[in-house]
Amino acid sequence: MKFRPTPDQLSYTFGGREPVLTVAPGTAVELYTEDCFGGRVQSVDDLPSVVCEFPYLNPVTGPIHVEGAEPGDTLAVHFVSITPARDWAVSSTFPHFGALTGTHTTATLHPPLDEVVWRYDVDVQAGTVTYHARRGDYSVALPLDPMHGTAGVAPAAFESRMTIVPDVHGGNMDTPELRAGVTAYFGVNVPGALFALGDGHCRQGDGEVCGTGVEAAMNTVVILDLVKGVATPTPRFETDEALMSAGSARPLEDAYRMSQHDLVTWSAELTGLDVLDAYQLISQAGEAPVGNVCDPNYTMLAKVAKKYLGTATAYEGIHARLRSLRS
Amino acid sequence: MKFRPTPDQLSYTFGGREPVLTVAPGTAVELYTEDCFGGRVQSVDDLPSVVCEFPYLNPVTGPIHVEGAEPGDTLAVHFVSITPARDWAVSSTFPHFGALTGTHTTATLHPPLDEVVWRYDVDVQAGTVTYHARRGDYSVALPLDPMHGTAGVAPAAFESRMTIVPDVHGGNMDTPELRAGVTAYFGVNVPGALFALGDGHCRQGDGEVCGTGVEAAMNTVVILDLVKGVATPTPRFETDEALMSAGSARPLEDAYRMSQHDLVTWSAELTGLDVLDAYQLISQAGEAPVGNVCDPNYTMLAKVAKKYLGTATAYEGIHARLRSLRS
Amino acid sequence: MKFRPTPDQLSYTFGGREPVLTVAPGTAVELYTEDCFGGRVQSVDDLPSVVCEFPYLNPVTGPIHVEGAEPGDTLAVHFVSITPARDWAVSSTFPHFGALTGTHTTATLHPPLDEVVWRYDVDVQAGTVTYHARRGDYSVALPLDPMHGTAGVAPAAFESRMTIVPDVHGGNMDTPELRAGVTAYFGVNVPGALFALGDGHCRQGDGEVCGTGVEAAMNTVVILDLVKGVATPTPRFETDEALMSAGSARPLEDAYRMSQHDLVTWSAELTGLDVLDAYQLISQAGEAPVGNVCDPNYTMLAKVAKKYLGTATAYEGIHARLRSLRS
Amino acid sequence: MKFRPTPDQLSYTFGGREPVLTVAPGTAVELYTEDCFGGRVQSVDDLPSVVCEFPYLNPVTGPIHVEGAEPGDTLAVHFVSITPARDWAVSSTFPHFGALTGTHTTATLHPPLDEVVWRYDVDVQAGTVTYHARRGDYSVALPLDPMHGTAGVAPAAFESRMTIVPDVHGGNMDTPELRAGVTAYFGVNVPGALFALGDGHCRQGDGEVCGTGVEAAMNTVVILDLVKGVATPTPRFETDEALMSAGSARPLEDAYRMSQHDLVTWSAELTGLDVLDAYQLISQAGEAPVGNVCDPNYTMLAKVAKKYLGTATAYEGIHARLRSLRS
Repeated sequence: MKFRPTPDQLSYTFGGREPVLTVAPGTAVELYTEDCFGGRVQSVDDLPSVVCEFPYLNPVTGPIHVEGAEPGDTLAVHFVSITPARDWAVSSTFPHFGALTGTHTTATLHPPLDEVVWRYDVDVQAGTVTYHARRGDYSVALPLDPMHGTAGVAPAAFESRMTIVPDVHGGNMDTPELRAGVTAYFGVNVPGALFALGDGHCRQGDGEVCGTGVEAAMNTVVILDLVKGVATPTPRFETDEALMSAGSARPLEDAYRMSQHDLVTWSAELTGLDVLDAYQLISQAGEAPVGNVCDPNYTMLAKVAKKYLGTATAYEGIHARLRSLRS
Repeated sequence: MKFRPTPDQLSYTFGGREPVLTVAPGTAVELYTEDCFGGRVQSVDDLPSVVCEFPYLNPVTGPIHVEGAEPGDTLAVHFVSITPARDWAVSSTFPHFGALTGTHTTATLHPPLDEVVWRYDVDVQAGTVTYHARRGDYSVALPLDPMHGTAGVAPAAFESRMTIVPDVHGGNMDTPELRAGVTAYFGVNVPGALFALGDGHCRQGDGEVCGTGVEAAMNTVVILDLVKGVATPTPRFETDEALMSAGSARPLEDAYRMSQHDLVTWSAELTGLDVLDAYQLISQAGEAPVGNVCDPNYTMLAKVAKKYLGTATAYEGIHARLRSLRS
Repeated sequence: MKFRPTPDQLSYTFGGREPVLTVAPGTAVELYTEDCFGGRVQSVDDLPSVVCEFPYLNPVTGPIHVEGAEPGDTLAVHFVSITPARDWAVSSTFPHFGALTGTHTTATLHPPLDEVVWRYDVDVQAGTVTYHARRGDYSVALPLDPMHGTAGVAPAAFESRMTIVPDVHGGNMDTPELRAGVTAYFGVNVPGALFALGDGHCRQGDGEVCGTGVEAAMNTVVILDLVKGVATPTPRFETDEALMSAGSARPLEDAYRMSQHDLVTWSAELTGLDVLDAYQLISQAGEAPVGNVCDPNYTMLAKVAKKYLGTATAYEGIHARLRSLRS
Repeated sequence: MKFRPTPDQLSYTFGGREPVLTVAPGTAVELYTEDCFGGRVQSVDDLPSVVCEFPYLNPVTGPIHVEGAEPGDTLAVHFVSITPARDWAVSSTFPHFGALTGTHTTATLHPPLDEVVWRYDVDVQAGTVTYHARRGDYSVALPLDPMHGTAGVAPAAFESRMTIVPDVHGGNMDTPELRAGVTAYFGVNVPGALFALGDGHCRQGDGEVCGTGVEAAMNTVVILDLVKGVATPTPRFETDEALMSAGSARPLEDAYRMSQHDLVTWSAELTGLDVLDAYQLISQAGEAPVGNVCDPNYTMLAKVAKKYLGTATAYEGIHARLRSLRS
């Protein structure tokens, strides 16, 4: 099944929207996602603050109703492939947005930094995105590493949140770990889960320090499935090699705490280890990939190689099962 | 006009709800507001985590549609009186909520602190609320100083937010400065503004350190009015003596920055002072009352006595006008 | 006893210095303190970044060795009077310092805000300091409210800290609460305590948002005394009406937590209340005066009126005793 | 040259100590470093809070005076090898220390988590450290990856800092990136630089979430050299493949900002790129390895592969030169 939203089908929130599509658990869908600028920034002369209009930023494709999903279940989203839809992508500074500038909340009396757009060449065959300096003639090819910045479900408690916000429902986590090969787990808060996806990046540095990645429209294949009766407190990812927990909060140490806390307690639960024993093991074997340090909540992951957790299997082995479906 | 919501009329979000009442600008309304526990915690044996059910917490009365309110206008809410509706009130610790405990975001491996309820005697005539220790026999009368923890309008960008969250739309700011005599200003984001009010406190310490104030149902008289064509970026308060700006964010220094930034730039605008001159004046004459240090965003105010700002008049003098209407 | 340091006697650290004076417990001393710019900023044309040289900033008078002070004791410093030594004072912005600017740690790519000096007229008789705008002709008199930004003892653990840093040894707390009439308590970390004092402000707004107060040289009378065998974990203040605990940390919520935690546990200890009962009482009766939100650590106080704590007496009643000595 | 300190030669601060050794620039020295517990925690029954005494924690070997080092120079420390000195190592929780517990500054009313010690088997030949659960019978071998948590020079401004503190002088950065093969750069603040080293870890997870790594005594060979007349604002590391900048601050986003800011501006300087062009390049190509999220300042690194920076050479190529000396 393929779905490409018309412009008026694009969504700018998680929650508060009717589904654009309904699928049965286990369905593979190919989704077209527009870039975070709604495709309006096409050249270095298209300044985002001019061509984009608040709140029509960071559109997502969806929401998708997954049949049978109920609060208390877990939605498993296996990312089969993420492919740039165009041979170019863009990045930019944006007034009072990013980690090395005064912002709306880290309010300063400075005028904004210059608003500058960079246009990248995307070569899917070669597996590269090429950076070009704007104020000099330096270019360099970086590895293509496609990912989605924004993925999630409708929040709990009757909330509707801008797509730019990451929280326990997912949203704009902006982590390079959300690439093909990953199964993402989201706790279901409303009937049908209402999954949506957007904000493709050809690649992104840790923290997305200037506020944007290499922003691109994507054609992405996901398999949507359910783990019935199993709750998930915060987004989690699984690859063939690793388990990950996401935490989104401010200050950044709270994103770290949330993610590490979930990985410690989840590891304890999966292995039968005492919680302090799991705390120690993660303290020495764990990683802490940085997602974003620029969005309304910051995001960090806690990650551990499965091989250090013995024979533990997460979510009834659904990752391995979905992985095998791909081929 | 009086309005007392039925239980099923209570709202648990700002945004995403139909109005329960429509009024013309300039209307005085008496609103009954339930306490943050929905009135379910009546004795020290009613543990909130047992008698209350997420997300049915912190109910607000409203939303109220104000005729003619459009995005870009300012809603002025003059608080004529705030009167406790009962002769008792309650406070409590709550598992993993408060400033001196591990929480959902400041995630730790500690079990929660004990959940304890305190019941206060409220004597409106004497102007006191009386504290009674639970694990000893100490009692002390504190001054009654009624306020609303939660007040605001529907947020922008199609959002709907739990009533427990404070942000630029207002919400759960939990500041003792929101007492009778104040005119509160909120930027209008949706037609009708959709004002709602709740979370009365008989009094509250700075920061609401344990997570709750002296929680009480209230009968509150407000006058709802409009300042057309004047935007308000973050909630502001005016009394006969002072101007205040609210900032809600994490970490707490960002709440401080947002509030001080708004007061500095607002003061510059009102007085014609250069921004750095206003920065200096607020640096020496300004106050920083602490709202909450326990909610999903923390809240601080920036405050300055009007007498230090010369002849500046805010919002076309609407506070003085509404103040005079009271008598 | 009077002490006025020669320029080469000024100290720029707490710890790591030989005493300039030795006194017996109970001694009253009149200390001259230079302003934070070392007296070099005298007109609006004296830019601090030009006339001052790092690390010769924020000089303190001291350290003073108090005979018999040993680690584990408490130094009680009663502030009898704080009097501006000149009829002018200064304030300024400083490159990348203050709350509404990018800084060394909140590192941004913005150039610094303009460096501007304001010169105030000080009228001790009238009890005013007069502000003059630099880029307009507005002037306004503010109440004189003299205080010391910097006061403390040598730190523990062989440390020596720049005078600009506040921490558990005291230092640059920059709180308007440190005014005449207060008894300040500091835990003694080294023999003799090694008290030092500086950074007088004619007044200061909450948080010292631009980074400096109304900076002035002061003639200050303190009585230095000891409470033997009683430890003090973080600086505390006592007035005739209130008890206060200081917390200095980043982020600002940790300064809040430290100060409230100390006040809660100290109140429990003084009254015999259970800790959760004290937590509740402080939650409703406590205040949270903001010190600085610009220094290497931010400072907040937790404050409670003594009348809410029954008959509790702190530090064996030394405040009342020192208070009575004044007259 | 070899140096093994006697117990009374161990140092507990950076700054405030006489050198234990003087070397000429370019000298290779083999240093023995004790573990962070001073070697006193040898079995699971040796609780750190019992067998160790504040402030005699985290001893360092040094300081070493490097001849000719002057303020404004850069000390280059090439780590030739880091070898565990014993066939065991230890880790532990510690009361109110770590990321998932209330602490001295993130002050809560919780009692401390259980204090537990884990003893690891170290097998240098096999390249493993083996974890053993304390409350179950699970064991797992993790890769040996030796590093030093603590390395630095005497601070500026007459300061002396506990070895547990990381800041711009280095100190307790606790980053796994400080392993053999790295050249670390420190700005010199005092004559002789006064380098010291300690806190070896056989390995450590990102953030050192429980507060300690796999703590071990080490035999470490470093080459100490100078880059005259070149200043270094914050510690930097260089490997054959990458450049890194360290930032140490609270909250964690400030450690991120400091490190990314330094890497952006340093990259611009090395390549001749405009600062915003460098900001963009690091935003897409940069990494953000997490050091510690438990010490008095948190530490993050910003890292970029040299191959993305063209022909830029840092510090006159000293890394390549020292690297070649090893063989």
